[in-house]
Amino acid sequence: MAKMRALVLERQHELALRDIELPLEVGPGMVRIAIHTVGVCGSDVHYYTHGRIGPFVVREPMVLGHEAAGTVVEVGAGVRRLEVGDRVCMEPGVPDANSRASRLGMYNVDPAVQFWATPPVHGVLTAEVVHPANYTFKLPDNVSFAEGAMVEPFAVGMQAASKARIQPGDIAVVIGAGPIGTMVALAALAGGCARVIVADLAQPKLDIAARYEGIIPVNIREQDLAAEIGRLTEGWGADVVFECSGSPKAWQTIMDVPRPGGAIVVVGLPVEPVAVDIAGASVKEIRIENVFRYAHQYDRAIALIASGKVDLKPLISETFAFEDSIKAFERAVEARPSDVKLQIRVAD
Amino acid sequence: MAKMRALVLERQHELALRDIELPLEVGPGMVRIAIHTVGVCGSDVHYYTHGRIGPFVVREPMVLGHEAAGTVVEVGAGVRRLEVGDRVCMEPGVPDANSRASRLGMYNVDPAVQFWATPPVHGVLTAEVVHPANYTFKLPDNVSFAEGAMVEPFAVGMQAASKARIQPGDIAVVIGAGPIGTMVALAALAGGCARVIVADLAQPKLDIAARYEGIIPVNIREQDLAAEIGRLTEGWGADVVFECSGSPKAWQTIMDVPRPGGAIVVVGLPVEPVAVDIAGASVKEIRIENVFRYAHQYDRAIALIASGKVDLKPLISETFAFEDSIKAFERAVEARPSDVKLQIRVAD
Amino acid sequence: MAKMRALVLERQHELALRDIELPLEVGPGMVRIAIHTVGVCGSDVHYYTHGRIGPFVVREPMVLGHEAAGTVVEVGAGVRRLEVGDRVCMEPGVPDANSRASRLGMYNVDPAVQFWATPPVHGVLTAEVVHPANYTFKLPDNVSFAEGAMVEPFAVGMQAASKARIQPGDIAVVIGAGPIGTMVALAALAGGCARVIVADLAQPKLDIAARYEGIIPVNIREQDLAAEIGRLTEGWGADVVFECSGSPKAWQTIMDVPRPGGAIVVVGLPVEPVAVDIAGASVKEIRIENVFRYAHQYDRAIALIASGKVDLKPLISETFAFEDSIKAFERAVEARPSDVKLQIRVAD
Amino acid sequence: MAKMRALVLERQHELALRDIELPLEVGPGMVRIAIHTVGVCGSDVHYYTHGRIGPFVVREPMVLGHEAAGTVVEVGAGVRRLEVGDRVCMEPGVPDANSRASRLGMYNVDPAVQFWATPPVHGVLTAEVVHPANYTFKLPDNVSFAEGAMVEPFAVGMQAASKARIQPGDIAVVIGAGPIGTMVALAALAGGCARVIVADLAQPKLDIAARYEGIIPVNIREQDLAAEIGRLTEGWGADVVFECSGSPKAWQTIMDVPRPGGAIVVVGLPVEPVAVDIAGASVKEIRIENVFRYAHQYDRAIALIASGKVDLKPLISETFAFEDSIKAFERAVEARPSDVKLQIRVAD
Repeated sequence: MAKMRALVLERQHELALRDIELPLEVGPGMVRIAIHTVGVCGSDVHYYTHGRIGPFVVREPMVLGHEAAGTVVEVGAGVRRLEVGDRVCMEPGVPDANSRASRLGMYNVDPAVQFWATPPVHGVLTAEVVHPANYTFKLPDNVSFAEGAMVEPFAVGMQAASKARIQPGDIAVVIGAGPIGTMVALAALAGGCARVIVADLAQPKLDIAARYEGIIPVNIREQDLAAEIGRLTEGWGADVVFECSGSPKAWQTIMDVPRPGGAIVVVGLPVEPVAVDIAGASVKEIRIENVFRYAHQYDRAIALIASGKVDLKPLISETFAFEDSIKAFERAVEARPSDVKLQIRVAD
Repeated sequence: MAKMRALVLERQHELALRDIELPLEVGPGMVRIAIHTVGVCGSDVHYYTHGRIGPFVVREPMVLGHEAAGTVVEVGAGVRRLEVGDRVCMEPGVPDANSRASRLGMYNVDPAVQFWATPPVHGVLTAEVVHPANYTFKLPDNVSFAEGAMVEPFAVGMQAASKARIQPGDIAVVIGAGPIGTMVALAALAGGCARVIVADLAQPKLDIAARYEGIIPVNIREQDLAAEIGRLTEGWGADVVFECSGSPKAWQTIMDVPRPGGAIVVVGLPVEPVAVDIAGASVKEIRIENVFRYAHQYDRAIALIASGKVDLKPLISETFAFEDSIKAFERAVEARPSDVKLQIRVAD
Repeated sequence: MAKMRALVLERQHELALRDIELPLEVGPGMVRIAIHTVGVCGSDVHYYTHGRIGPFVVREPMVLGHEAAGTVVEVGAGVRRLEVGDRVCMEPGVPDANSRASRLGMYNVDPAVQFWATPPVHGVLTAEVVHPANYTFKLPDNVSFAEGAMVEPFAVGMQAASKARIQPGDIAVVIGAGPIGTMVALAALAGGCARVIVADLAQPKLDIAARYEGIIPVNIREQDLAAEIGRLTEGWGADVVFECSGSPKAWQTIMDVPRPGGAIVVVGLPVEPVAVDIAGASVKEIRIENVFRYAHQYDRAIALIASGKVDLKPLISETFAFEDSIKAFERAVEARPSDVKLQIRVAD
Repeated sequence: MAKMRALVLERQHELALRDIELPLEVGPGMVRIAIHTVGVCGSDVHYYTHGRIGPFVVREPMVLGHEAAGTVVEVGAGVRRLEVGDRVCMEPGVPDANSRASRLGMYNVDPAVQFWATPPVHGVLTAEVVHPANYTFKLPDNVSFAEGAMVEPFAVGMQAASKARIQPGDIAVVIGAGPIGTMVALAALAGGCARVIVADLAQPKLDIAARYEGIIPVNIREQDLAAEIGRLTEGWGADVVFECSGSPKAWQTIMDVPRPGGAIVVVGLPVEPVAVDIAGASVKEIRIENVFRYAHQYDRAIALIASGKVDLKPLISETFAFEDSIKAFERAVEARPSDVKLQIRVAD
């Protein structure tokens, strides 16, 4: 154990940048990483403002932060893929490698996953962390720490794009232009779609998404989404619809959007059960896929960023110094529509 | 046109066995078929009792019946696969071969499909019908007309089993032991499942299903389905769940039944949108497939019946003479739980 | 029938630009198109130099050309998606819509396909052609005729990319940097790959491919392909290997290139059966997909070109006037490594 | 380590039933099993007669046997699914759980797999063995030890059936009616095929396969396989062809057997690269899958045996006492066509 300065959520509504005891022993297969940059995620903010997410309740002080990049500073026994000095980013969730889900290749749905900044597991808004090498990924020279800390939310987009089983040249729709919706849109484009129509009520969010070639914004305050998709597809419908708003209202008319035999990939989670038009889904034989975090996406995400196919830098709205971590969270609470991702630079 | 005796639904609640003018011209690619046996389907009965199904309203007298087998009596120009005397069964829905959906191989979701006994299209509870050879399938010698007339409902089960993408040895659950649920269970077993657990409230229905080796009945009036599946699968869950009840209640707890990464195939259609636990689907990354009738299933269904892997004969509860057609419908209206399929023998 | 000027292959080694009788009747569902641009394909050249391709032998004078774009000048009965004045490109192969393969959605493997410039079917290096509207595709305003005439070879790349079942972020290898290999590489990139390594012996071909971001050239005269892929993938191997050389030599070591569980998509056709290392394929459980032309790819290909994700213009090496058609073929026979695609402009 | 009696392959051609030192320490996650029944596999026999299989050479005395069932007699720390007294069968190959292939769910293609009776790893023709609980599977009461020892070869059939992606009602062909071909045929039938045509030159092998309902034998000494399949499928071809003979001759005409868009699953391994008709595969867009052992098939295999869908008992040709182990191998060397599986009962 070592005493390190960290951004600690003491309890709902109370943050402190203070020293805390954290484990730093480097066992076999593990690496120790000096944290460089950490993104502020909606779930971090939600623990701050609500003290819980569903069954996960903050009962003890907990370090926040799980979207992280840094530098390897120590390597445990048996680690071969990494060495000291490697710039890396990390998957925040570590499953039981021997669980049934993990052995089938679906470690993300292993109920035993330990996930950073999910009570009672500490996050990484601190100086250093020890992590399994298998969940630590080297960043190529042309991928910055800031981009490395974006891999985590982008991996959610990758998982959604992967579940969609995109055929090259597909037309996709993303409902909801928040940070995750935008990530999904970029992953869908990089993953083979010809066009992605992004739908939202907030024009500033649409304006940010629309800067990317291939994305067509639709402000559903002004335009009927299904009608617009019909116009763009000769009345056929979209090949894939990514539901990223989590809004029950989106579900009221969603079956009008996909083509016969198309797919809906559900990324946004409504808190309560939501009314779904099963008859509408049936008549088109819609396939509905559900996404939970990601599995096996980090190396793919990094490859797409490194190759230049995906540019996440324009989505970093502002970077805060570690000392200003609490300010970063206060800004995040404001939820400015023009803010996509706020980051905290822990080291220089 | 020819005048033929037929079972005509004059309007809601009123059936008549009377002469009616029907077209019998045999164009190119068509065959004329002498009808032998016709099954009574829930939709036939629903038109009788309600006068409509959703947007399809009985406004003119309409011949009922769409689950049919018979004998080819005339062959149109260009037909090569069939000849006079062939014993056959027929797909009741004929799509536009040049529609986008048909060309993609999904003719069942072509909105232009013309379907027997769906207003304003006549059914086949009559002496003869003209039909495209492409939707007419030869019965092997060891498949009776009665079984041939069962191919239509069984094809729904086949479509569901096909959408499930069963892996050999899967454990499946069928919710709802009505005629379609039972067909789905048999298709799932023949299609690769090791076991199919069939769940219902009505013991007589479960008793019929349980006669088949490989089917395990669960009376959900007495047993908790998810708990029972947990017991049978070491707590892992079912690989595939077929929802065949159409009951909103079934959706309340359905996410407890599949395993992580499992599938739900929706066959039963609730009339209204139904509350779906999206969060529960997400945490297991459930795939939800929707089924609309069937495409490319008749030859496969017949092959399974002919090979002895599927025996539908025990599901034929009673056979009525053509003269007793109205009695058959009156019996169907009773909805006896021990009745699976009632059939009408039009010819001898 | 109408007499029109056309590029006619009289017999092996003999081309003539002369008048010939061609059918121009516009039946229901058909459109008449004024040809604008036609690409010269390797198969056109092969009929010229060899008089045959496998079982297809030139026995009568035959108009060449099948990669074509033009303008709709007449519309048959029942055509709704197209109107006079539409700029279009056309699929050169027309199947029997009622064949078993077509109805399953795989019209490309229908043995009854009639394909332009495949004996005895005439091609379209002439003024006008009549074609089914279903195989005629509208070009968006930002897609030129020259690009429209590139859709045919690009569709082969799309079919290969589609068969590969690319996962977003895959690393692919293309063996063979000829016109088709390059098309495949672009389709694979647009279809979701992060990087495509293109391997060839001819540096000028590699130089052209390497102009595209995301393509990494490997000259296998100087570098060992498997070793290079190992270096780029931490020893894991490529997710997908597209064999586009048709060279038996490529097959000698191809099993060293894919990762465990990876795929080989075969596009290049060796004339004779080729020695395949089945044991090498087994130990990695390689999936081998075979590609024959394309099905359902034109609209997707056009969407990718129109969206800016795929730029085929740099691959058009030179454009010839219709009067110089024979010169175009003589140039094609030279097989300059720096020539990717030669085109003939039939109209202005 | 403990000294135990075992069937030891001293070197090529030399077997001894003698005492040998074997490790019996039960670490965490491990179980100790008293061996009951072990099947004699072709690979065991091949090590005996040839002293090697490809790169695997017998350099030290090695215990033979890897198709085994027995009883748990000790349980290591952390094992929850198993307890002392459980009747079990075991996967003979144990991968590195942290390898890239294992984490992706494909542990069978992990190059680090340690496999029983594959030099230098000892097999289990002995009294006891220690094995990971994760690769040890409980046998239901109605599955005997003899059947449990058949799960290993049947799992190869299951892997092949799984790779085939059988659609319910498919028509399959199995080329080669040896023990593995027969296992594949049974797995294909249980896995959803309506019929399996089994082809071989040896009538006694075909006679054994033909005892199963759904299997159609074709003696290719007398009948042309492709012609026969054409006759059975109206000229369309088989949905799936399992190549289980490993014979280069089978590859000469194999492309005539599948339907357009069909699949070939390669189970039999020719020693040398084999001439494959790529052009024939292309014109039908055949998918070729390769199989290496199995992954995640044991529980599925056991479920199918327990449910009564698969009966392997008729394939056990003779059972030898442990004292007669060498006789069992001498009989296996005879390769009688009527012998499918020989087993050795180690305990009573």
